[in-house]
Amino acid sequence: MVTILFSASDESWEKYRAPLETAFDAVGLDVTLSTRHDPETVEYIVYAPSSGLVDFSAFTRLKAVLNLWAGVEAVTGNPTLNVPLARMVDPGLTSGMVEYVTGHVLRHHLGIDDHIHNQDGVWRPEAPPLAQDRRVGILGIGALGAACATTLAGLGFDVAGWSRSQKTIDGITTLSGTEGLHAILARSDILVLLLPLTEATRGVIDGHALDRMPPGAVIINPGRGPLIVDSALISALETGQIAHATLDVFATEPLPRDHPFWSHPGVTVTPHIASSTRPPTAATVIAENVRRGEAGEPFLHLVDRDAGY
Amino acid sequence: MVTILFSASDESWEKYRAPLETAFDAVGLDVTLSTRHDPETVEYIVYAPSSGLVDFSAFTRLKAVLNLWAGVEAVTGNPTLNVPLARMVDPGLTSGMVEYVTGHVLRHHLGIDDHIHNQDGVWRPEAPPLAQDRRVGILGIGALGAACATTLAGLGFDVAGWSRSQKTIDGITTLSGTEGLHAILARSDILVLLLPLTEATRGVIDGHALDRMPPGAVIINPGRGPLIVDSALISALETGQIAHATLDVFATEPLPRDHPFWSHPGVTVTPHIASSTRPPTAATVIAENVRRGEAGEPFLHLVDRDAGY
Repeated sequence: MVTILFSASDESWEKYRAPLETAFDAVGLDVTLSTRHDPETVEYIVYAPSSGLVDFSAFTRLKAVLNLWAGVEAVTGNPTLNVPLARMVDPGLTSGMVEYVTGHVLRHHLGIDDHIHNQDGVWRPEAPPLAQDRRVGILGIGALGAACATTLAGLGFDVAGWSRSQKTIDGITTLSGTEGLHAILARSDILVLLLPLTEATRGVIDGHALDRMPPGAVIINPGRGPLIVDSALISALETGQIAHATLDVFATEPLPRDHPFWSHPGVTVTPHIASSTRPPTAATVIAENVRRGEAGEPFLHLVDRDAGY
Repeated sequence: MVTILFSASDESWEKYRAPLETAFDAVGLDVTLSTRHDPETVEYIVYAPSSGLVDFSAFTRLKAVLNLWAGVEAVTGNPTLNVPLARMVDPGLTSGMVEYVTGHVLRHHLGIDDHIHNQDGVWRPEAPPLAQDRRVGILGIGALGAACATTLAGLGFDVAGWSRSQKTIDGITTLSGTEGLHAILARSDILVLLLPLTEATRGVIDGHALDRMPPGAVIINPGRGPLIVDSALISALETGQIAHATLDVFATEPLPRDHPFWSHPGVTVTPHIASSTRPPTAATVIAENVRRGEAGEPFLHLVDRDAGY
């Protein structure tokens, strides 16, 4: 019997309790999982830094702390924590991103919004072009961008990807550098933003960039909010240069109620859901780490406490 | 010189004439293709069942009828047709169908309609489940259904397929027979209808079938309109047993302006666009079948006249 403390919000406990129990069962572990345990009995803590637990010194039998989120900056410097700390690397996050991007690319490709909005009794039998005749561009082809590019190419889309330094992905046109950026903007009927936020990428989608795109292009941003200059996007939507923007991330989140994105008919706001950690897949990662701890095997996704990540 | 009659609408003739001539050239056939030929000279008919041609008895030299569409229910029982009948299996049609089905499955999976309808300034950060936790059922796993099933499974969906006689598809749970039908209905959060229309499948989605589905299930019908009993679907939408239906095909097309499907908030009507045959790819298939007929090779995509598809 392994004693595991769940130290996160009540809301997280509701979401994670059943998936964790299922995941511990699946790896053959007999555990007692609770939000309350006598500290001296606890062997593992499933942990969210926001839980309020900051003094680990009473947990004398503790073997490891398993973080629920990818970010560990709030715990990595804690001097009372003297056992291994693992962060979350959720395979569900990549799957969720691919599903979000593929779903919204197909939505715009197929013109699904027009069907939803025009249930007016008028039969308009015009089929969309095939995916092979639709050009999709992906800015940022790291793990997430490359997975999206490969899936979209598998559906037949004419996909190009751009990164700062040149990369190679089977079946995808890859571009890099400033010239490559201009080229991918010019050929993207649908542009997906999956760049990391750095000083080089902040505001990369400004008025000049939007002007380079084909008239009536669509933008999907599940990456980082400040990649886009909001006022330039609104202007391009007004002129029709950009037909639609589906945005999942924003400079300020939650997106303020009075931000013009909410009311603009050419914008769909989604509430930062494309890259969510999913309890069923995240629970599997935690259970596997407890199994490893009990078997004396090395933990997955260990944090280097000196480097801080 | 092979004599080929084109028997379809004037609109189809405009679309198909040039692609067919190109395709016959490409396989090295010398043909005389026309919408008018002395029936006694005609060797092949490129055929749309809506063309008005119903008596084939005057075509005494006829070698085969090559259907322009996938559906053959309007011609398969014709007693005056005594030569091989091939239906269209258009690679463009398969791509278009896969795009439509994948797009609408992802739309319902991701809850995209809620985002489109609720741009009200309220941040609701609930992510959808992963595709692996969404059960999709496909009724009819011929060429189109199997392609859709494989693509959806590739995106991670938990896919099952049903056919009258048992089939095997890698990575897909396959079911058959009456018990299998009950089982796939009971496990389908999203059900896609791609069955041929036969006496056995007409009205297969009736009130009893809808009652077997998980409450709040979604139906997507890009197959054949009369697979569904319209009144039973409306009733199931009223009670919430079915949350949404996206319908591309109807018993009467165009769907009459006063049909309740148009105004029901739980129904999205699309105007028979999922299975649009694309002339350039379809013409290639027809030319290949004429080439085979002239070379004494077996025809592609022959219809089993007894089974009806």
